[in-house]
Amino acid sequence: MPESEYNQKIGYLGPKGTFTKMAVDALFHGGDFTSYETIPACLDAVEAGEIDTGVVPMENAIEGSVHLTIDYMTHHVDVPIVAEMTVPIKQHLLVRKDFDPEVEEITQVYSHSHAIAQCHQYLHKQYPNAELRYTSSTGRAAEIVADSDEPIAAIGNHLAAEENRLVIMKHDIHDYDNNHTRFAVVQKQPKTMKIRDHIPTKHKTTVMVTLPKDYAGALHQVLAAFAWRKMNLSKIESRPMKTGLGNYFFLIDIDQAYDQVLFPGVEAELEALGCSLKLLGTYPSYELSVPTPNMQTSQ
Amino acid sequence: MPESEYNQKIGYLGPKGTFTKMAVDALFHGGDFTSYETIPACLDAVEAGEIDTGVVPMENAIEGSVHLTIDYMTHHVDVPIVAEMTVPIKQHLLVRKDFDPEVEEITQVYSHSHAIAQCHQYLHKQYPNAELRYTSSTGRAAEIVADSDEPIAAIGNHLAAEENRLVIMKHDIHDYDNNHTRFAVVQKQPKTMKIRDHIPTKHKTTVMVTLPKDYAGALHQVLAAFAWRKMNLSKIESRPMKTGLGNYFFLIDIDQAYDQVLFPGVEAELEALGCSLKLLGTYPSYELSVPTPNMQTSQ
Repeated sequence: MPESEYNQKIGYLGPKGTFTKMAVDALFHGGDFTSYETIPACLDAVEAGEIDTGVVPMENAIEGSVHLTIDYMTHHVDVPIVAEMTVPIKQHLLVRKDFDPEVEEITQVYSHSHAIAQCHQYLHKQYPNAELRYTSSTGRAAEIVADSDEPIAAIGNHLAAEENRLVIMKHDIHDYDNNHTRFAVVQKQPKTMKIRDHIPTKHKTTVMVTLPKDYAGALHQVLAAFAWRKMNLSKIESRPMKTGLGNYFFLIDIDQAYDQVLFPGVEAELEALGCSLKLLGTYPSYELSVPTPNMQTSQ
Repeated sequence: MPESEYNQKIGYLGPKGTFTKMAVDALFHGGDFTSYETIPACLDAVEAGEIDTGVVPMENAIEGSVHLTIDYMTHHVDVPIVAEMTVPIKQHLLVRKDFDPEVEEITQVYSHSHAIAQCHQYLHKQYPNAELRYTSSTGRAAEIVADSDEPIAAIGNHLAAEENRLVIMKHDIHDYDNNHTRFAVVQKQPKTMKIRDHIPTKHKTTVMVTLPKDYAGALHQVLAAFAWRKMNLSKIESRPMKTGLGNYFFLIDIDQAYDQVLFPGVEAELEALGCSLKLLGTYPSYELSVPTPNMQTSQ
């Protein structure tokens, strides 16, 4: 492996044991890793050149608001998306190795508010009397349980268990299956990244389209520019502009790499309609497959 | 005021002093109020008939994930939206009355992770050495500061200050202006609600459209059904179905009340395309205007 790979500075929304860190571990062989407390702090570090690469949640996140990532990327920093990694969200109930459920009852459950909410049904049925305690991340919840000697549990992923020498008392306690988080890998100066042995499931392009005024059918006209070129849109989301209520921009994911024919054609048509198009990135899309508990055990 | 108004049971995402509670105070004269720890817990209580009305964040929330509200409402409970309230998000730095910034330096700043992220630039410049501590809500952060005798501060709204007898040391420390949160008011059995003296800014209808398969131009066809009827869409968002990646449904806000001509026409056309349409609510939209600090003081 070339030395330069290990010299790459990679930042992510921390702490250790979060779903973001799972995405980072899946993406990179090695490097100089830094954990950031907030999404803006991580994106700022990329913008300022303090790190080469940042990894932040972009959709359906536990640790942070999607909107925060999108808004900060569209309004404050200019750091293109160079890859995305989709990670399945599987929440487990984590306890210390010496905790014996036959002897003691769990009195408190720690986790990020979103993770607790995702396990609402399970907690309601299994631990109706346990006190719910909220933390800044699932990783932090695991740290607290590891450092305590009380009969308490954390909700988090298997990495949080490993990082904090906890055991998984109960697998997959989330109420809904098929929950995923998409993470964006961003770089100020796109450079060749060494991604671990993943094969991209597809290539995608993300654009931001700003409409001159909120009028009936405007979005329909915008989408027509993509539709007649048979460009498939895998995501569309309207977001308010920071200039006030009622002014929206659209964030659109297209299921293909940027090219010099179709995209400039779309852009020219949208400009003729008074819209503007900003390219936020064209990138390979990776998926992390986490083995299910059934596959890990002898069952 | 009729007695029945006070008997209405209203639940909201708590605790006291959150932006959700600001929306609740703005909406209702009186009633029997219950604070819930999570969005699913509040929605479950409405579904189960334990409360008449629930108020939860729907977009750009501090306390909770938008996606959680939308997903829970579309997949788990059947509680129509009967009103929405938009609240401007203004974050202030809150301290105890006896705290003197001339004598002591703030060592820790407490708040919900999203609120801390929203004030990232301010904190970075003004309090680079303060430790950031994360709480489950802005309201909880204010409680912690009120109960402490250390030189610490909370980030929260003016209601959090009032509820916990804190003072606003610095107004409007959020990095971006014009940030708003939309709250949904939901009821299992829609009944006449006594809304305080607000005049709706408009009427809206929210629908969920499910596509049979993710194919190029599908969304464009769906929007055509609205566009040729000159129905203005104020929000559109694609969300993954819980059945796995790549299967999406669309959440669409239309800027008009449900009627018996246009909407059934749209529904019939979409069904002919193999799509299904589910009505999530048709409701008045209210806006809370919070006076700016300049208007409150003599400046």
